[in-house]
Order: sequence, then C-alpha cells, then structure tokens
Amino acid sequence: MACKAQTVLFKEYVEEGPVPPENFVLKEIDLPALKDGEVLLEVQYLSVDPYMRGRMRNSAGYFVGPFVPGEPVGGGGVVKVAETRAPGIEKGSFYSGMVPWTSPQIATKAQLEQMQPVDTEILKLAKLPISGYAGLFGLTGMTAYSSITRIGQPKKGETVFISGAAGAVGMIVGQMCKNIYGCKIVGSAGSDDKVEFLTKELGFDAAWNYKSMPTLQALNKFCPEGIDIYYDNVGGEHLEAALECARPHARIVCCGMISQYNKKGDERYGVKNLANVVFRKIKMEGFLLFQFLPDIVPEFFEHFPKWIAEGKIKDTEYVVKGGLANTGQAFCDMMAGKNKGKAVVKCVDKDPIMGN
Amino acid sequence: MACKAQTVLFKEYVEEGPVPPENFVLKEIDLPALKDGEVLLEVQYLSVDPYMRGRMRNSAGYFVGPFVPGEPVGGGGVVKVAETRAPGIEKGSFYSGMVPWTSPQIATKAQLEQMQPVDTEILKLAKLPISGYAGLFGLTGMTAYSSITRIGQPKKGETVFISGAAGAVGMIVGQMCKNIYGCKIVGSAGSDDKVEFLTKELGFDAAWNYKSMPTLQALNKFCPEGIDIYYDNVGGEHLEAALECARPHARIVCCGMISQYNKKGDERYGVKNLANVVFRKIKMEGFLLFQFLPDIVPEFFEHFPKWIAEGKIKDTEYVVKGGLANTGQAFCDMMAGKNKGKAVVKCVDKDPIMGN
Repeated sequence: MACKAQTVLFKEYVEEGPVPPENFVLKEIDLPALKDGEVLLEVQYLSVDPYMRGRMRNSAGYFVGPFVPGEPVGGGGVVKVAETRAPGIEKGSFYSGMVPWTSPQIATKAQLEQMQPVDTEILKLAKLPISGYAGLFGLTGMTAYSSITRIGQPKKGETVFISGAAGAVGMIVGQMCKNIYGCKIVGSAGSDDKVEFLTKELGFDAAWNYKSMPTLQALNKFCPEGIDIYYDNVGGEHLEAALECARPHARIVCCGMISQYNKKGDERYGVKNLANVVFRKIKMEGFLLFQFLPDIVPEFFEHFPKWIAEGKIKDTEYVVKGGLANTGQAFCDMMAGKNKGKAVVKCVDKDPIMGN
Repeated sequence: MACKAQTVLFKEYVEEGPVPPENFVLKEIDLPALKDGEVLLEVQYLSVDPYMRGRMRNSAGYFVGPFVPGEPVGGGGVVKVAETRAPGIEKGSFYSGMVPWTSPQIATKAQLEQMQPVDTEILKLAKLPISGYAGLFGLTGMTAYSSITRIGQPKKGETVFISGAAGAVGMIVGQMCKNIYGCKIVGSAGSDDKVEFLTKELGFDAAWNYKSMPTLQALNKFCPEGIDIYYDNVGGEHLEAALECARPHARIVCCGMISQYNKKGDERYGVKNLANVVFRKIKMEGFLLFQFLPDIVPEFFEHFPKWIAEGKIKDTEYVVKGGLANTGQAFCDMMAGKNKGKAVVKCVDKDPIMGN
C-alpha cells in the first residue's frame, strides 16, 4: 500500500559562511507500494555532524561526495524495519548507518545489509537508548576509537590535548585517554558551562573556554611539560598552539578543523610554526572512519560496550526533539556550538529501548 | 708528541636572519700528547647541511642540541686514523660520523666506535671518492633512504613532488622514486641552472625555478593528476601548494623547511589550507635520521652501493675546497643555495680513493 512520507531536501550549495536553516526544506512526498525484496524503514534518530558542512559545498569530493540540490540530505541514523518484503529481514528489527533524511523510506535488502544491525541486548547492558547507535555505538564512537587507537596511540602518563573537547568525538576521546590509557587530559571548549562539564562530569584534568583564554596561554599554564597527543577538532590557532607545545614525536590526530570550515581562502588562519613538525619529529594525520572499516568493527564492539557498562565512557548524548522538521535547525545549532556532546535528533515519540 | 691543530669555533648565537661567515672563527690550538686508548684523527671531508642552522640558535634542543659559543662547530665528516694508541684500531683506516671541526683531533676508542667504519672496497665498486661517506653513504643518503622508505612509501605510478630538489637529499629522493620505484617525479629549485640539471642529468619529468614560477601554478601545470607524495625541504608557500594539489591519502615527508629557518615568528609564512589534511586524509611526518638508526644501516648498505654501481643513483657531490678555513663560508653559501647537490668541504690535498 502506498503511503506518505516526510523528507528534508537540500536547497543549494553554500560555499562560505554558515548554512542557514532555510537551506533544509521539509516536504511531504508519496511513497510507492513496497515491492518484493524491499523494506519500509522508519527513522528513529538522525545524527548531525560537523563533517556534513563539507558536503554542502560544490567542491571536488575528496571527503564524502557533495549533497545534490533538490535531493534529500543524508547522514548517520538509526532506522526500524516497519514492513518487510525481503526474506530474512525481520519486522521490528533496527539498523544503523548512513540514511537519507526521509521517513518512512523504502530500501532494498542490499541497501539495508550495508548498515549495521542494532544489537538491543548490548544497549540494555550499557543502559543506552537506541540512539546509542547514532552516537557512542555509531559513527561517533567508532571515529573516536579508530583514530585514537590507530593514529594517536596513547601511552600511560602522556599528556593529551583535545580541542572541541565537549563535542561528540572529543568527549569520547578524552574519556578513553583518561580512563583506559591513563593519560593526563586537557581540553578546550566554547563556553564556561561546557568547561565545567568537562572537569566536573568527565574527569578532565584541566579545561578552558577558548573564547576567554588563548590556547597557547592555556597550554603553557596547564601543560608546562608539553603535549604528546593533540586531538584536533578545531584547527587554526588551536593547531598552531599545539605545535608550539608539542613534545618530540608528538602525534596530531586531525579529526576536524571546524574553525576553518565556514571561511574562505584569505580569511583562513595561517599556521606559521609548521617547521616544528621537522624539528620535533611530529606526525600529523587526517583520516576518514571508512578507511578503518570494516576491520575495526568487531574490535570496537568487543571493548566499547564493556567500557560503557563499567562507567569508563559516559553517555554524552545531546538529544534534540522535533523530528525531521527540526533536523536542519539542529545541524545549524550544532555548527554554532550549542550542543554539549553528540547531537542527535529524535524522530520517534518514545525510545524503543528506554521507553521515554 | 704534542702537535698543533686547526679548529673552527662557533662565535655566538644568531636567532634571526642569515648567519654571517664571521661567526665561524678559525683558531690554531695545541693538542696534548696521545694517551693510551686514544687515536689521532685527520679530517678528510666535512659536510655542511641545512639542519645545522637550528643549532646556531639558543633555543630548546628539540632537534640536536645547540652549538656552544667558543667551542668548535661540528657536523658530519670523514676522518682518517693518523696515529693510534687504541688496540684494534688500525692506523690509516677511515671512519665517518659526527665530528668537531678540528683537525687533527684526539678521540677515545669509545668515541671512534660510535662512528661508521669506511668500507673502501664499496667506494671503489661505486667509483666514489672517500667523501661519499659524508654524502651518498653518509647522513645524506641515509636520510633520503630512511625517510622515503619509511614515511613516503612510494608506489609504482605515483606522482612525487620534491622541493629543494637540487639539494643534497632532494636529488637522491628524486632518483630513488624514479629509478627504483617507477614514480613520476617533479621538483622545484632556485635557479635555471639547477632546473636544467634536474631534467637533463637526473631524469626529472618536470622541474621549475620557484623564483620565476609560483609553486601552485607549476603543480597545476605539471601534475594535473595531483600529487601522492610531497617531499618537503622548503616549507611555507611550497607546502601550501602541495596541500592544495594533494590526492587522497597523500604523504608529506617533512625533511626540512629551509624557507622558514631564517625568519622570526611574524615573518614566517602562514599555511592556510591545513583543513585539507582532514579532508584528504593526508599524513605529514617529520623525522630525524637518528630515529631510524641503527636498524636502517645494514639494509641501506645492501641496496645503495648496488644502485650507485648500476647508475640508478648518480653521485651529486658539490665539493668546496679550502679545508677547515673555508667551512664557515661553505655553510653560508649552502644556506644561500649556491650548491648543486651535497655540499662537502675537502680538507685533504688528494682524495685517498680517487687520488685527485
């Protein structure tokens, strides 16, 4: 039987500056009837993440390809199989992965099988809502886990500086470095509220508001011994300060440079001390989660649920309500730093695991 | 028996700008008589290299420690055992390694054993003068070999851009990438003469004079396909252009950033496109030869003499005459880019291998 669906369309490319909420256009569409081999999926949660800004420019697709104007926006999310005409796919089961911002939506069995089946038992063990698969158990958790284990390689007693530490990935990296590897962790964030959250709730050894304390001054104050790992979510002045305080053989994990994404060429921050990469034998490395997939997945699911159950990694979700109609605004708010932790948009009335 | 020696003393730290030749002070000194367990060494050749500029600043010794004012300058070199009171050390044998700019000089057996014994048979096979151990078979060759094999990791058909390509390390890297790994190689240099040398003599697929053609323009022209490896000897604008043209998973080997060494903080070039490290999953890595020692040595001597004998790596030595008295000037000339290939100062009348 055919049915109605809601979708969020990408209006147009925005090369510079913030993307306005009006660039996300909510529309009602008709879905055709389900065919053999297809499933009908209901979106449960959608993830909004900084990397998506890159897809809103019409530039060469070195990262993930750009969005197409007039077509649905897409990103990480958790879906439920509402109807199935695909043998072997169970009605009521959940999957996480990359999905268009359309609900309900039709997918083929092959498309669904590219997603990760949600293990609801693991969620119950870790006391996480099903949105956990859009955050801690999804792209965010795997991004943090793979980059810090493969590039950062923290050793006990080392000092780790994380910029954007109250962001989705930063929080997990910090907790891993502190509670799993025994490092000293310091971090920057964009509000006093976030700074308090980092030190009081997440056990950061020090944190500061970069809007009121320059990064270099903060690093000199809190890490007079220098830093061994810089986990970069911000770029620009933060990166320059980290290079200034880097110890020999420091590793810089280039996860994001959000301070630079909205700027055009000339306005970007010029980093002047890259000669330190030579002098101090520094390794700087960018990555994309997909380069570590699928190898990282079993290892990740072996460790991560246990760490959460043991309280070593806290759930740091920032749930935005309002469903599909609110995803555009939620993206804009996340880019403006309004979230504390992983921003996800709730698209169901009640979480199927937690019942709230 | 006591004897006279010449030494070159380091006058004072020069924090900014070029180091003048007057900063190297030639002095005659008296050597004490040789004691048991000591050897008397005659310097054959001395190497002058860009990294030495860093040792002429009084800054935290992240690299090699700074020189001490009033004490001899030092660097790579080849010495001959002129007298020996150390059992097992043969008179007339040669060694290469780090030595003070003093000749003759006294060393203990333990000090000598930290140096590399010169294998004169290998030199004869490769038809190289004994200075080969200060260049191709010394720090220069090992620096090129270890960094390109361990960090650059070239694959057949890849495009490699080398800045400062007519410099000591750049020339070897280029020839290795072309003749051993089957890459396309392009390079920048600071004079038309050097550019011609790179394309006509060393087989570069393209080269340009960075003083008359901006790096980004040259890369767009000669490497429209993008670059897979950037071997950086220059930094600044060169690095920014390379980041602009880097392909996904490009590697940047940070060997040197000579354009930035003589500049103070504010005058340094600000690199504005580091977000490409994130978008294109780039690895940038600094190194110091010593981190690969001693493991790299047997492997290096297995391959390198053979490559030279087969003509895959050409001898690219730039010999400066005048002995110790001329080493300061030779260093200054090398920093000003007057050399083509590895700059060494000849401190003997006749090369003991070639007889010239």
